[in-house]
Formats: sequence, structure tokens, C-alpha cells
Amino acid sequence: VDPARDVVLAVDIGGTKMATGLMTLQGELIDRAQVPVDHDLSAQELFGSLTGIVDQLVERATDHHDRRLIAVGVGSAGPITRNVETVSPVNITAWRDYPLRSKLMEHTALPVHGDLDAKALALAEGWLGAAQGRQNFLAMVVSTGVGGGIVLDGQLLDGATTNAGHIGHVIVEPNGRRCGCGSRGCLEAEASGRAIEAITGRPPTEPSYETMQRTGELVGRAVASVCNLLDLDLAVVGGSVALGFGATFFNSAQTTLDQHARLDYSSGARITPARLGDRGPLIGAGAVALRGLRRDARANRVR
Amino acid sequence: VDPARDVVLAVDIGGTKMATGLMTLQGELIDRAQVPVDHDLSAQELFGSLTGIVDQLVERATDHHDRRLIAVGVGSAGPITRNVETVSPVNITAWRDYPLRSKLMEHTALPVHGDLDAKALALAEGWLGAAQGRQNFLAMVVSTGVGGGIVLDGQLLDGATTNAGHIGHVIVEPNGRRCGCGSRGCLEAEASGRAIEAITGRPPTEPSYETMQRTGELVGRAVASVCNLLDLDLAVVGGSVALGFGATFFNSAQTTLDQHARLDYSSGARITPARLGDRGPLIGAGAVALRGLRRDARANRVR
Repeated sequence: VDPARDVVLAVDIGGTKMATGLMTLQGELIDRAQVPVDHDLSAQELFGSLTGIVDQLVERATDHHDRRLIAVGVGSAGPITRNVETVSPVNITAWRDYPLRSKLMEHTALPVHGDLDAKALALAEGWLGAAQGRQNFLAMVVSTGVGGGIVLDGQLLDGATTNAGHIGHVIVEPNGRRCGCGSRGCLEAEASGRAIEAITGRPPTEPSYETMQRTGELVGRAVASVCNLLDLDLAVVGGSVALGFGATFFNSAQTTLDQHARLDYSSGARITPARLGDRGPLIGAGAVALRGLRRDARANRVR
Repeated sequence: VDPARDVVLAVDIGGTKMATGLMTLQGELIDRAQVPVDHDLSAQELFGSLTGIVDQLVERATDHHDRRLIAVGVGSAGPITRNVETVSPVNITAWRDYPLRSKLMEHTALPVHGDLDAKALALAEGWLGAAQGRQNFLAMVVSTGVGGGIVLDGQLLDGATTNAGHIGHVIVEPNGRRCGCGSRGCLEAEASGRAIEAITGRPPTEPSYETMQRTGELVGRAVASVCNLLDLDLAVVGGSVALGFGATFFNSAQTTLDQHARLDYSSGARITPARLGDRGPLIGAGAVALRGLRRDARANRVR
């Protein structure tokens, strides 16, 4: 056994595509594959299209890369139950309480660990990205929806049902727009790609200056509340909307954060773009696998 | 040595009074003392008035109660640095970066552990109060100021500078009142006793119905943001303002929380009054001592 040969299979489940990757224990992606989500498929057929890109990389791991697969890590769009025992991604209607973990364990005969995609991204950015080496930070995604993950005292927060970090439903506009969750004025109801399209009548890929600025302001406001609440001074922001809006968005978010994070511990807090780009979700999924293996090892030592 | 005889000395440092108590390992307060904070005293004189009520209980522990003191626990108004190495309570101007921990260690020759008063209260309410046995909850104090503590996955959150849980600076009114922290529209700037007095021109002990209702609404809004963010469904609320406003406050807070906590994991979240009353701060300080002793024991085992 040569640990330098070990790799994990990373699986990213999104609303529009599913992706797989082979990741070394150092976080290097040595191979990847992806497939669009076909919304006309049944639950079982969709799993079939996933196992297509799983099998492809499992085969290449040994045949092409001469590597040994030791685990599977999953980052999935929510909602999920703990460790992706079941997944019900909002935009994948075929999967409702779909038992992804047992299906993947059965199919791969490997240990499977999973978490929400935004939490996986927090692990990735803390490991190799914009929050590298930081013990306390928020990572968030501003995309079709808005999600997040929080690392505090060096630990990714889970919460009772594994949803901690979900900044999308922090209230930023009292009496604001009705949110999909049933509340009003949530960050997701005001600043997500879906909200922007509904408010402006234009896709978030064609924003006005005002839209980019306002979205930054709302994100900055939510981040300020979270930094003040949780003794944080760094927010790493990814997602197609945030990264697409670029400097106008980030400058506006930073200005708002500067105005509202004024406590000794939160003043000087920074908002910074996610650094891992399109590798982030897969590295995150891989990091979830490694965290799961460490937890299993610890549990075995205690036993 | 008979552990049934062990007690800890609990010390509560507030803006208007300081209190001490003898607490058994089961959380029973068997004796207590208090002294008002005299704002004309120097730092050293103020410590002298604290050691007066410390010495009184140290003496009674052995002479009167036949108990053995094993540690000191401190809950202090903030800001503080980790483990009350230094304390600078906003309303005790004589103490700025006052080295409370070393002073108390020197004076008592006992291990001293400390934390913020609101976090201590969270420990107390989770141990013996309204959140008994809960692994995930928020505890908060609505009094002259607004503070809080958060227990997640069974652990009281600390954060980088030990201030995690400080719900007082979650934004509830964008472009609202200027806050003492320099921001605007913080919960503390809108719903604290100090804010209520400034807004209404009346002390918070003489509230109108509208004031009680509005304060409840603002607290409910902040709690909803925190429950959505951190996967929580319980907030325990204490403090003279909240408890003084009573049912009108709590009903209004609950109605607002119901409207805004609508996710699978946050819907049904409850706001409930703190249950330990005026014993809460001392039991909290005692719990801080016990947590410190457990941490020390763990560190020694590892060593």
C-alpha cells in the first residue's frame, strides 16, 4: 500500500449538471467528467447518468492513472439529510428523499461521505483557497440561490440537521420580497440570480450597474450581521452571480461591510472572491470525503 | 477527598453590581453575596470591593458549609479577552484591560476560568434551564444592552476572539438608528433598554404597549435570521427588558419568528423566557468554571 497512490472520487450534484473528479490527498484534481442534469429522467435513470461519469473515473483511476480509490465524497445542492443519506435538490425534482449515499455505496463498494455543496466549498476554500489556514470564516455562494458554510474555531459548523451556514435566509430587507421559503426579505429573495431576474426582468448575466451595486450592498449587509454575530472577519464569496458581477459587486459589498461591521473583532472584516473557481465544488466534495475518513478513523480509535 | 463536598466560587461582573456564589457540582447555589459597583472607585479599589464578597464566601465555604472550593468561574459584561485574561466592561470605566484572571488567581490560589456573561447564561440555561438537554440553541439577554451565546452541536461557540453569539449587532433595521458600535440599525440600537429610553424618552420599566410589541418584533426578526443561518429552533431570552415586558413581548417575538423562520429546519422555532431567573448569571459563571476544569483535565490527559 502506497498512500501517494490514494485518490478520492469527488461528486458534485448541482441543479444543471453533475460532475465527478479524481482528487489526490493533497487536493489536486487529476481527472474529471460531467454530465448535464436531464430533467425528464426518472430518479433511477438520473442515477444511471451519474454512475456513467462515476464508472468512467473509477476505471481511469486504475487503468490510466494507476491510483487507488479509497472513498467517495459528495457535495450536493440542498436540501439534504446528514451525510447525503437522502438528497432532494430544489432543482432536481426527480430526486425527492433520494437515498444517494446507500446507492453510491452499493455501486462503488467504497465509503461515501457527503454534505451540502456550499459547506463543501467552505472546506475547499479553507484548505486551498481564499481562506487557506484560517480558523474562522464564512464561505458563501451567490448563484441561482444563495448558500453558505461557516468555519468556527477550526470546525465547519453542522447544526441539528446539517444546515448551519445557510446565509440565504438572513433577513436583509424587513417587509421585502416574498421568499421561496415563505418568509420576506431574505437575502436569497433579494440578491439571488432568481430574485434578480424576477426584480429586473433581465437574466443575471446582463446586469445593470445598479443591480450589481445593490446586490453587493445586500450581501455586505448580511455578511456584516454574520461577522458581528459570530466573531468573524473574513467572507469568501463565490457563485456565478457574485463572480460575474465582479469588482462592482465586491466593492459595493466591502463598502457596506465596512459601514456595518464596527465592533473591535469585526471591524476590518474582508469580503473576497472565492479562489478555486470551477475546481472549488469538486475539491470541496473531495474534502468532505477526507473529513469523513478522518472521523471514521477517530471513531475506530475510540472504540 | 469527597467530591460531594466540592463547590466552585461563581463570580458575576455586571455594570451595576458584582455578585458571588457557592455552587455545587450539580448546579445548586448554596450561598451568595453581592455588592453594588461604585463608579467612583479606582481599578484597585473596585477589585477590593469584589474580593470583599469573594473572601466572605471563601470563608463560609469551609467554616459554615464544610465544603471544599476547587475553582473560580467568572461571567463578565464585555468586552473581555479570552478566559477573562482582561476585562473592560462597557459600564465599568475603572476597569480597562483589567487583568481579572491573574488578580483572582493570585488572590484565591485557585484555578480561574471566565467568559462573557451572556455566554455563561447560555451554559446555565442549557444545563439546568429552558434549554436543558438541548444540543442546539441560542440564549440571549435583552437588558441595558443585548448579548447572546450560541450552542451548536453541543458546544458553546467561542469564535476567534471569544465573542461569538453576540446577537446585539445583527442588523434589524437597514438605515435604522445609529448604534454605539458605529453601525446603524443593529438590534442593540433598536431594542435594548438604552435604545428604548432614547427612542421613547421613557425608562424601559415604563413601556407603552407599542414599545413592548415593537421590541418583540425586532428581537423576533433577529432570532429568525439566526435560526435560519445556524439551523436552530430554540431561543431562550432573558434580561430585565425582555422579562419585564413579559407576554406582550414574547407573543410579538414569537409571531415575528413564525413569519420569518420558514425553512424545514427552522419552522416551528420557539422563543421562550429564560428559566433560571436571578440565579442564571451565577449558575452560568459556575458552569464556566466546570467547563474550564473539564478542559484542563482533557489537556492533561493528552499531555
